[in-house]
Amino acid sequence: MPQFSIDQLAEIALQILTAAGVPEDDARTVAAELADANAVGHDSHGVIRLMQYLEMIEQGFVKPGAAVETVRSGPAFTLLDANFNFGQVAATRAVELGIEQARQAGTSTVMIRNCNHVGRLGSYSKRAAESGLASMMAVNAPGPGGVAPFGGIERRLGTNPISMSAPWGETALVLDMTTSATAEGKVRVALQKGESVPEGWIIDADGNPTTNPARLYDGGALLPLGGPLGFKGFGLSVMIDVFGGMLSGSGVCRTDLPRGANGVWMYFVDLPQFIERGAFDNLMSQYVDAVRSTKKAPGVDEILMPGEIELRRETDRRANGVSVPDETWRQIQELAQKLGTSVG
Amino acid sequence: MPQFSIDQLAEIALQILTAAGVPEDDARTVAAELADANAVGHDSHGVIRLMQYLEMIEQGFVKPGAAVETVRSGPAFTLLDANFNFGQVAATRAVELGIEQARQAGTSTVMIRNCNHVGRLGSYSKRAAESGLASMMAVNAPGPGGVAPFGGIERRLGTNPISMSAPWGETALVLDMTTSATAEGKVRVALQKGESVPEGWIIDADGNPTTNPARLYDGGALLPLGGPLGFKGFGLSVMIDVFGGMLSGSGVCRTDLPRGANGVWMYFVDLPQFIERGAFDNLMSQYVDAVRSTKKAPGVDEILMPGEIELRRETDRRANGVSVPDETWRQIQELAQKLGTSVG
Repeated sequence: MPQFSIDQLAEIALQILTAAGVPEDDARTVAAELADANAVGHDSHGVIRLMQYLEMIEQGFVKPGAAVETVRSGPAFTLLDANFNFGQVAATRAVELGIEQARQAGTSTVMIRNCNHVGRLGSYSKRAAESGLASMMAVNAPGPGGVAPFGGIERRLGTNPISMSAPWGETALVLDMTTSATAEGKVRVALQKGESVPEGWIIDADGNPTTNPARLYDGGALLPLGGPLGFKGFGLSVMIDVFGGMLSGSGVCRTDLPRGANGVWMYFVDLPQFIERGAFDNLMSQYVDAVRSTKKAPGVDEILMPGEIELRRETDRRANGVSVPDETWRQIQELAQKLGTSVG
Repeated sequence: MPQFSIDQLAEIALQILTAAGVPEDDARTVAAELADANAVGHDSHGVIRLMQYLEMIEQGFVKPGAAVETVRSGPAFTLLDANFNFGQVAATRAVELGIEQARQAGTSTVMIRNCNHVGRLGSYSKRAAESGLASMMAVNAPGPGGVAPFGGIERRLGTNPISMSAPWGETALVLDMTTSATAEGKVRVALQKGESVPEGWIIDADGNPTTNPARLYDGGALLPLGGPLGFKGFGLSVMIDVFGGMLSGSGVCRTDLPRGANGVWMYFVDLPQFIERGAFDNLMSQYVDAVRSTKKAPGVDEILMPGEIELRRETDRRANGVSVPDETWRQIQELAQKLGTSVG
């Protein structure tokens, strides 16, 4: 498998996106987000998405260069329409706006309608934390990763991720999770590797539990988070459809909307307007110490805080680079050739 | 078991609280919340709490009549200090303030520090929905219901509930859930009934899974939501400690704070400032229809929306009253006698 630095991955993505006609500034934003997903180890949201994104441009679902417009705003909120530009472009704009408004007003809310795939939600919440703010975000995610409601056996809901973050010393505490048992991408990865998936992730077309990832693509569905307590994951997912999909005006029922019509909800708190940063840092460090000091279950070496795995992977991968699977690299090269450019 | 109407339960609670020296307005608020919990079927948060609340007054943890003060505020946020008055009194004030500010500013945030048990969080979010707003709320809940971090076997976290709500036609969609597998109260109820609890709720003092509720009170701990995916429930819980416990300035590490020092985070969205109410209602009804139309798993009669069970129970119980277990009723009468009053 070829090895790349994170910067090289961003450069490759930039090359392909600009060759496809994406304006350079926007291409740079999308490329950086894709490479960043590889950096933290979420390869399913990394450069592998280039093929899908290019298809979405061809099919008219992604409209490169479309203006991200303000539909409505007040001192503490903004409602944006992404007009089907890249989700990363709209989300990056939303975070900038949200941070600016929160610094003025103490807190802020930014919603985005008609937004394409934003990539990894935790990337945006982490940026807010690195700017000294606390944040919460959610996306009502449409697309092929259909989740069954609790008690149901057909796909109805998106994997509807939620992310929350806050400063943690020099870095950030970042929760970034789907409200389904898993993201669709992880099932796809298992399928490609010929592995089975854990129990409780998916059901087959008849609603039977299965560990065979192929069953998901054969009429099956993802399950909501919680197993026998799946009404909780289902409930979170429903409320994300409300906040991301209804309040934003994006609409919610995937089947009657163009692919890509996500709704995004972002909420920012300017931390120092609520508690002095030094006092916050003390509470945080005392808290993390208390949690980490817990007696461990057999086989568990340490208690990991939200986002800690990603932080470690990022340190490693920014230093040592990332392996890209041969097949992915072949597809990327093929794509570059088709666009009349070359990469690597 | 004696039977009472919801109004009678509120009257009984009011009688006891005023006899204990709680100012009448505050007593009315607390009594209404307790009776409301009984009405929706959450008896563990109902009048059974009177005994605990009175103990907390005696021990100085609840300070009846303490002023709920504004520590800091802006056009779109308020930070309150409950000064250890009843949580219901502070939370009710917070919801009123939050609704008022959101109507002015589009969105609002209210945090409460030094707050006692607020009762059922869903009661407050529902009130916002009934006023036409969408809301999210969370409490970093201390107390005896200790939850182990994911991978740990000792108590560290509260059951840290989260509630989200939005208008749903004439009523409200209300998610109200702990981020642990279960609330401590449900384990206690199983213990009192001599029943076992489902797998995945608790571990014993050695970290072994158990279905014996007694093990929780014998050095055991509650588990975070998610089972093998418990890092998600744990992550949500941690972030609620951040938003409720740190940003509010309440502090977070239960062991070094007086019992009752909850932190509350509430967020309100004035719906019509984002989407016209009629359009929202159409999206909601189309969405609920789509979700409900899902093919059901064997043995499942219908897909229930968040809060739907509570809505049905409330209709039934407001019409037909509630049975109070003999032992609870005996304790309430004993309490009344001790306070020099009588009930029922």
